[in-house]
Amino acid sequence: MLLVIYLVAITAEAMSGALAAGRRNMDVFGVSVIAFVTALGGGTLRDVVLGHYPVHWTQHPEYVYIVVSAGLITTLIARYLHHIKRLFLLLDAMGLIAFSLIGCNVALEHNYPIVVVIIAGMMTGISGGVIRDVLCNQVPVVFRKELYASVSLAVCVLFLSLRALDVAFELNALVCFAFGLVLRLLAIRFQWHLPIFSYHQRWD
Amino acid sequence: MLLVIYLVAITAEAMSGALAAGRRNMDVFGVSVIAFVTALGGGTLRDVVLGHYPVHWTQHPEYVYIVVSAGLITTLIARYLHHIKRLFLLLDAMGLIAFSLIGCNVALEHNYPIVVVIIAGMMTGISGGVIRDVLCNQVPVVFRKELYASVSLAVCVLFLSLRALDVAFELNALVCFAFGLVLRLLAIRFQWHLPIFSYHQRWD
Amino acid sequence: MLLVIYLVAITAEAMSGALAAGRRNMDVFGVSVIAFVTALGGGTLRDVVLGHYPVHWTQHPEYVYIVVSAGLITTLIARYLHHIKRLFLLLDAMGLIAFSLIGCNVALEHNYPIVVVIIAGMMTGISGGVIRDVLCNQVPVVFRKELYASVSLAVCVLFLSLRALDVAFELNALVCFAFGLVLRLLAIRFQWHLPIFSYHQRWD
Repeated sequence: MLLVIYLVAITAEAMSGALAAGRRNMDVFGVSVIAFVTALGGGTLRDVVLGHYPVHWTQHPEYVYIVVSAGLITTLIARYLHHIKRLFLLLDAMGLIAFSLIGCNVALEHNYPIVVVIIAGMMTGISGGVIRDVLCNQVPVVFRKELYASVSLAVCVLFLSLRALDVAFELNALVCFAFGLVLRLLAIRFQWHLPIFSYHQRWD
Repeated sequence: MLLVIYLVAITAEAMSGALAAGRRNMDVFGVSVIAFVTALGGGTLRDVVLGHYPVHWTQHPEYVYIVVSAGLITTLIARYLHHIKRLFLLLDAMGLIAFSLIGCNVALEHNYPIVVVIIAGMMTGISGGVIRDVLCNQVPVVFRKELYASVSLAVCVLFLSLRALDVAFELNALVCFAFGLVLRLLAIRFQWHLPIFSYHQRWD
Repeated sequence: MLLVIYLVAITAEAMSGALAAGRRNMDVFGVSVIAFVTALGGGTLRDVVLGHYPVHWTQHPEYVYIVVSAGLITTLIARYLHHIKRLFLLLDAMGLIAFSLIGCNVALEHNYPIVVVIIAGMMTGISGGVIRDVLCNQVPVVFRKELYASVSLAVCVLFLSLRALDVAFELNALVCFAFGLVLRLLAIRFQWHLPIFSYHQRWD
């Protein structure tokens, strides 16, 4: 079940990467690379930082085919995608939650401290999008837009809390998805933002 | 032989890094760092992602001296370099091919799946230039300009195909160089591009 | 003693990260991430490149709490910080030196060649700030401003020289701090720069 959601998630992430590449007029190779790093870059960073080798996608060539295909297909159907904007945001939210849970689990396997487990979950959830934005030469949108990383944080904390209470993994994951989806969709609907910090003083 | 080409390649890459740093008015330290990451960053990323420790240049201090020297010398001779533009492009193309073959070989040593071997080859070939462009705050040129990454891809596929047919490594490498150089030089001469994906629809 | 200076250093680095995030109008999550990577990103990169697992901060959750707290507190006191500009620059310089010495020591533990030890020291000292600037979408200031990376380089070389002369670590560190601080403060006071390399020739 989590695997199915994961495959949907990397597809959605790859598509968001392809659209970002299109905004920079990249060629189809650039589209493929941005799709790849958006979908699989977060997990790669997590595996490298945690020393969790081999890096996950190197053992699953099918993930590579999926994300590159998703990126290239996006170039063909891009003009129709805004019609399914709501579906897209829903899949993206499911991906964020799936990535967060998977990230936590990888860190738990290695017995890292709780704060590292949470960081691993968030890193998996959001850093693909951060790498995408860096390669497209813009300030990462996740540091500025409505609640997104916070959803990942809340989901990770909820997951670890229920786990500490010995809730079975399946039920735990189900509760996390329900909670995370509601939180994320409410945040989009009502444009919930975290407080912004603006600082423009010059020191010289 | 491949080693000689490799040394020429990292020198050419370091010089391209130094010129990019000069376009951003960096100081000689910045020039050295950009030269270093352009020449050795691709191999570093490959080694870290594949878990191939120790990272290659840490066992070859002479590579560090070569690339930093090449970067600094470039600041002295930069004004004359456009006279040897063709030579420079030739060396750069040889470097791309050498990096690709070396990257494939490292992944083969660790028995990674074929698609990972190809990604390792391309990663070695092009990500030094990607890191250079990110540090110089521009959209990576390799995602947009005439056939470059595609040459790396074609060379990796050819190399693995001939290898599957039990062609000896030396002959295989020779064929790959001939094929890759011709393809790259034709691409430059006739400005062959991959299809561009432009997407400028707004979703809100 | 070095630990106390290290804690002061990561706090100062986290604060500089938070201010940079504020210049990009990030939300408090973005501020936390930038504070985190500015303070701990250099050491993370060093550990990953050297294969020194587990990465340092994963074994010290308190470092994570310190840097995130420092980042968030900075958003509250930012308007007063320019009054203590000199103190801030002093702490930042102490951090640069502490990071450099720690980086050298980690590489020495693994018996890397001398040039790799020096690179490890500099990487620890400056790459947190480089990642900060990349995430804030600007050319890294360390490649352009008055002597900073050079101070790290000089301190690493001095440290290794005294070590080769069998000077005890405590004395060695003390001399390095005195030398590094004087060099850095003189550089700020008299705006010492490395030579700039400007290159604006077009090749086509």
